[in-house]
Formats: sequence, structure tokens, C-alpha cells
Amino acid sequence: MTSETSTKDCLGWAARDPSGVLSPYSFGRRAVGSDDVSITITHCGICYADVIWTRNKHGDSKYPLVPGHEIVGIVKEVGPNVCRFKVGDHVGVGTYVNSCRDCEYCNHGLEVHCAKGSVYTFNAIDADGTITKGGYSSYIVVHERYCFSIPNNYPLASAAPLLCAGITVYTPMMRHKMNRPGKSLGVIGLGGLGHMAVKFGKAFGLTVTVFSTSTSKKEEALNLLGADKFVVSSDLEQMKALAKSLDFIVDTASGDHPFDAYMSLLKVAGVYVLVGFPSEVKFSPASLNIGAKTVSGSVTGGTKETQEMLDYCAANKIYPQIEIIPIQHANEALERLIKRDVKYRFVIDIENSLK
Amino acid sequence: MTSETSTKDCLGWAARDPSGVLSPYSFGRRAVGSDDVSITITHCGICYADVIWTRNKHGDSKYPLVPGHEIVGIVKEVGPNVCRFKVGDHVGVGTYVNSCRDCEYCNHGLEVHCAKGSVYTFNAIDADGTITKGGYSSYIVVHERYCFSIPNNYPLASAAPLLCAGITVYTPMMRHKMNRPGKSLGVIGLGGLGHMAVKFGKAFGLTVTVFSTSTSKKEEALNLLGADKFVVSSDLEQMKALAKSLDFIVDTASGDHPFDAYMSLLKVAGVYVLVGFPSEVKFSPASLNIGAKTVSGSVTGGTKETQEMLDYCAANKIYPQIEIIPIQHANEALERLIKRDVKYRFVIDIENSLK
Repeated sequence: MTSETSTKDCLGWAARDPSGVLSPYSFGRRAVGSDDVSITITHCGICYADVIWTRNKHGDSKYPLVPGHEIVGIVKEVGPNVCRFKVGDHVGVGTYVNSCRDCEYCNHGLEVHCAKGSVYTFNAIDADGTITKGGYSSYIVVHERYCFSIPNNYPLASAAPLLCAGITVYTPMMRHKMNRPGKSLGVIGLGGLGHMAVKFGKAFGLTVTVFSTSTSKKEEALNLLGADKFVVSSDLEQMKALAKSLDFIVDTASGDHPFDAYMSLLKVAGVYVLVGFPSEVKFSPASLNIGAKTVSGSVTGGTKETQEMLDYCAANKIYPQIEIIPIQHANEALERLIKRDVKYRFVIDIENSLK
Repeated sequence: MTSETSTKDCLGWAARDPSGVLSPYSFGRRAVGSDDVSITITHCGICYADVIWTRNKHGDSKYPLVPGHEIVGIVKEVGPNVCRFKVGDHVGVGTYVNSCRDCEYCNHGLEVHCAKGSVYTFNAIDADGTITKGGYSSYIVVHERYCFSIPNNYPLASAAPLLCAGITVYTPMMRHKMNRPGKSLGVIGLGGLGHMAVKFGKAFGLTVTVFSTSTSKKEEALNLLGADKFVVSSDLEQMKALAKSLDFIVDTASGDHPFDAYMSLLKVAGVYVLVGFPSEVKFSPASLNIGAKTVSGSVTGGTKETQEMLDYCAANKIYPQIEIIPIQHANEALERLIKRDVKYRFVIDIENSLK
């Protein structure tokens, strides 16, 4: 069963095999249902997830695969039951486009934790049996529940990274009450997620220390992003000086790294939030038990909190640092992302380059 | 410098070397200071810490070493400034007997987390330079701040295990709000700590599932301790049936064991509390991140919460399962503890056997 239209009027870029190389690909989207919003995509952020699934790193990629789950655009059509959006509105779509809408999590705006599994924005099997296709494409049709309102004063290109990178750090920061001025935050890794954690931390009134493996991002961390301190994690003297000094750590590093050294920087009852996916998490029980510390994980956020985060960013003028590229540079951008050669998020200018 | 009296009027049992073998040993305690309470010890619980330090497992044992930090007894003398206790009162002393009394943690009744380090009840260097000696002895002199009132209706022998095993599980259970009826709790390991976690869980109105490596304790877990379910952790079918079903897990196992399998049993936002000390903690980031789970550690509790826990146990008739032994059986008891051959806590009858 499929509800894709026979008209292949959606232009996208797709990977065809585990090489991950993207090239133009035309396909159909479903007809606009009664609760659906059809969105002309203007921009799509590039997330590391795009690398993982275009290259079949998890062995579950379904080709042709159109990546992209940091989607923003302009409403071009709405179904008859849609009440939150109208044609011309600025909207965003994040990492999931469907869920059961009936479980305890969905009922609390936590659709990302849907008991039956949320349907990811690309490479997932949707309720109608079709394979979802992401935002490296000209338009998308999404149930209004999974669309977010982008405040009019917020640039669309800047909004894109908020829909995965932004919400992924915002959610655990709010859950662990990091929005209390005067507390201290450590941020490990300064990529798409890490640089947003720094920005949220400063907006929340925290003292922010950035940990990095090299000094290359020091100047920008301090002067552009507004961090208070920058520490090279291999510098044992600097690390030792920070022992038991941090209330919170947000760890955005996906490469393997030791945990004990960072956990020793937490105060009593300090909280270490992991949002990256290293190959394993390993530490001494003493690092956790002594000082009653907490290690907590997180992935993206629910619809309610995503909208709240977008509104918070607009109200507080928090903007990701982005590098806008044409879709024709997408393959190169994915390569550069692997080499961590990005400051700090690529955003594809779909509107002006995908023709 | 030492403030030990020259009179060796305290009779104890001490280990003399890393064999850990205990034998009678007479020593002096300090004179009763203005804020001190002198306690005739009636009972002392046997904790695994007694094995660790009598046998120099951490390489820091100071011999002769008198173990024991689950101490109860009767006040025999108080200093002039003591206001909370009088001669004849039933009192307890737990895992620490001193702290700076001036830091943010001490000021909040969290002396266990004292910024300058709390002074453990045995094998530690006290403020006066003496080495602390524990409860396998006839009496002890302790600053009143580190003494707890044992309610008169509570048997002294039963109170002993509360002062380490009891508070060690009570503290994180309260911190993570496990005292909400209707929630579900898993308890890993059914020793001194685990059996108290079951009892607190039932008192809090939780549905309690015990996880054990063998069926040997099933009958007692269900019928004596009141657990609702008993699962052999190697039974993959039983484990699978419990996937995403638990709000909380209290892990009291000190032996090495996998974490991912247990973490998969937690609901979204579930909390896994570690109170044991396996050689390492290791799990997949997916076990933590997906479902936004939390792993938190803990060691014993502050003075405020310890008193609260004792009062709670008295009010709710929560009693540890104990096996009372004469001090002459202490060496055998430590051996049996290593073999986990105890249901569920040994308590030494100091009053009637140490002469």
C-alpha cells in the first residue's frame, strides 16, 4: 500500500547506495490529507544523521534515500482540518513526522518517545507504508502536529538547525533545570550541538566552559559564541584546576573519549548529559557514586518543547552559526562534516539552488 | 598529636594485617569533649566495607584496624554543650563521625559530601590526628552532630543496619522521588542493601521486582520481603517481558554485571540508581539516550536524612532482616558475607558477647 501520488513532482537529492553519494532524484509525495500541511522547503540543515543513513552505517538504509531533518519552509497548501497553519506561514519540521498520537507520551507532547515509535523524517516506514523522505527536496507533506511555527522575525535559514541540533541540547538542559542563572556549565565538543549548548547556556545566565581536543576553536568559542572559558581537555593542569567546579556538563562528542576525567569536574549532585553517540559509555562507579552524580541521556524533544524552544530563540535572539551552501555542494559538505570542518552547521539553500 | 586517653579501657576486635583476621584489642578513646556523646555500644552491623578495609583491598588500611560503621548503643555520658542527647538515650552512629561543619554541604545537612571530606567512622584520620576506630568495640565517643536518635520503640539490633545499608538506598530513593505509590521499582541484588530497597519500595507503595542471578532467594523475596515479582536475570524471556516497564531500578550488586539489559527495562525517563561498586560501569549510549534515561550514583546520606529515615522506619515498622551473632563469630561472618551467605545482614551482639 502506498499513498504516494503518481506525479513525481518533488525534486530531491538522494543517495542510491552505501557510497552515500547524493544526486538529483524525482519522486512523489502523498496528496495533502485533511490534517496535512504541504510545505515549500526553503532550507534544510545538514546533521550527522545524514552521513550515517546515506552511508548505511546502521545497516538499515532504504535507497533511494533522501536525507534531511532540519527542514524549514513556507506553507503552500493545508488540508481542511488544519487549524494552526495557513498558506504563507513560516514553518519547520524536525526529526519525526508521525507517531501514534494516542499513547501516554504522545498525549503529553512527548511524541519523540511514542510507545509505538515515532516515525523519523527520512528512511522510516510511515503509517501508510511509504518510506519517508527528508528535506533535501523541494517540498514535503506533513501532519500539522509535527510542524512548528517559525516566528516571523526569525530568519528561516537560521531556524533550520534548531529543529535537531537546537532541540537536542535544549530538551535535556531544561529537563535538568539548567536555566538557572549563576550555575556553571561545561560543554564537550563544539559542533552543531555543542555550539548551541554554549548559546543556550549563556542565554540562561550560566558560566560556560568549553572543552575541546585542540585550541583551534578557542578564539571563536570565547569571542563569537561568548563562552567564559576554553579548556583543552588533554591539559591535565587545566582540568585539575576545574575539579568539582561544574554544576552541569553537556557532552556532544560522538567520538570515543574518557568519561571519568570529565565527571571529576562535577560538583556534588552534578549532572552530566550525553547527547552524542560514542561507541560506549564507560566510567568508574566511584566517579558516579561519590558525590551522588547523575549521567543522563537525551535525543531531540517533543513537539511542545520544540515550539517553546523556537519561540525562546526568537525572543532571545539566539541564532545558530551557519554556513549556507547550495544543494550542489551537499556531497562536499557531508565530507567536511565528517572531518569536523564546519562552523557550526551547514544549511542547504534549497529555495535558490534546487531547481 | 593525639587526644586518645592513656587508659586503654575500650575493648575491641581489630585486624592486625591484610589477612583481615580479627582478634581482641584494647585501646583508648578520646576524653568526652564539650560536644561529644560517649556511647556504650550494644550492637554493630557487618557491612562489606568491613571486609574491604580489614583486608586492605584499597591499599590504605591502617592497622590495628577496628571496623564497624553500623553502630547502635546507649548514651553513657555527654559533654556540657550536648543538647540533643542525654544519658540512657538510644543512639546510632553511621559511616562518618566528623566533617568540617562549615561548608555548603555541611550547612545543608549533607555532611557526607563535606567539601573537606567527611571523616569515616574507622580507618580515617580524625581532626585531632587520631585514626578512627569503629563499632566492633565496647564504646565510642562521637560529636553529637553525627549521632542519631533511635526511637524507643525500635529494637536496637534492628536499627544497626539502617545506619549504612538502610540510608544508602533510602537517600537515592528519596532524591529520585521513588516514594510515589503506583510506580514500579526493580531491585538488583538481594543482600543487605537490596533487601532494604525492597522494604522501602513496598513501604512507598511501589510494585517491586527483584532481579537475582539464581532462584535461591525467590521464596523469601516474595513471601518474607514482600516483593511482587522475582526474575532470574539470565532468563531472557522473563527479562524481555519486562522491557520498558520499570520507573526505577536500584542496583545494589557489587559484582560485575551488564547494564544494557537492565536499562532496557526502564520506561522513558526511567532512573537507574547505582549504589554498588562493580569494577566498572559500561553501557551503550543508545541505552541511555533513547528514552532519555538517567543513571545516578549514591553513597550513604547526610545527617538530616539519616534521622528522617530512622524515624520513617520506626513509624512504618520497617525492620531489616538480621542474623545476630556474638563477636566471637565475626571472622566467620565476614567469610560468609564474602560468599553472600547471609540473610540479610549480620549484627554483632556487642553488649552480650564483647567482654
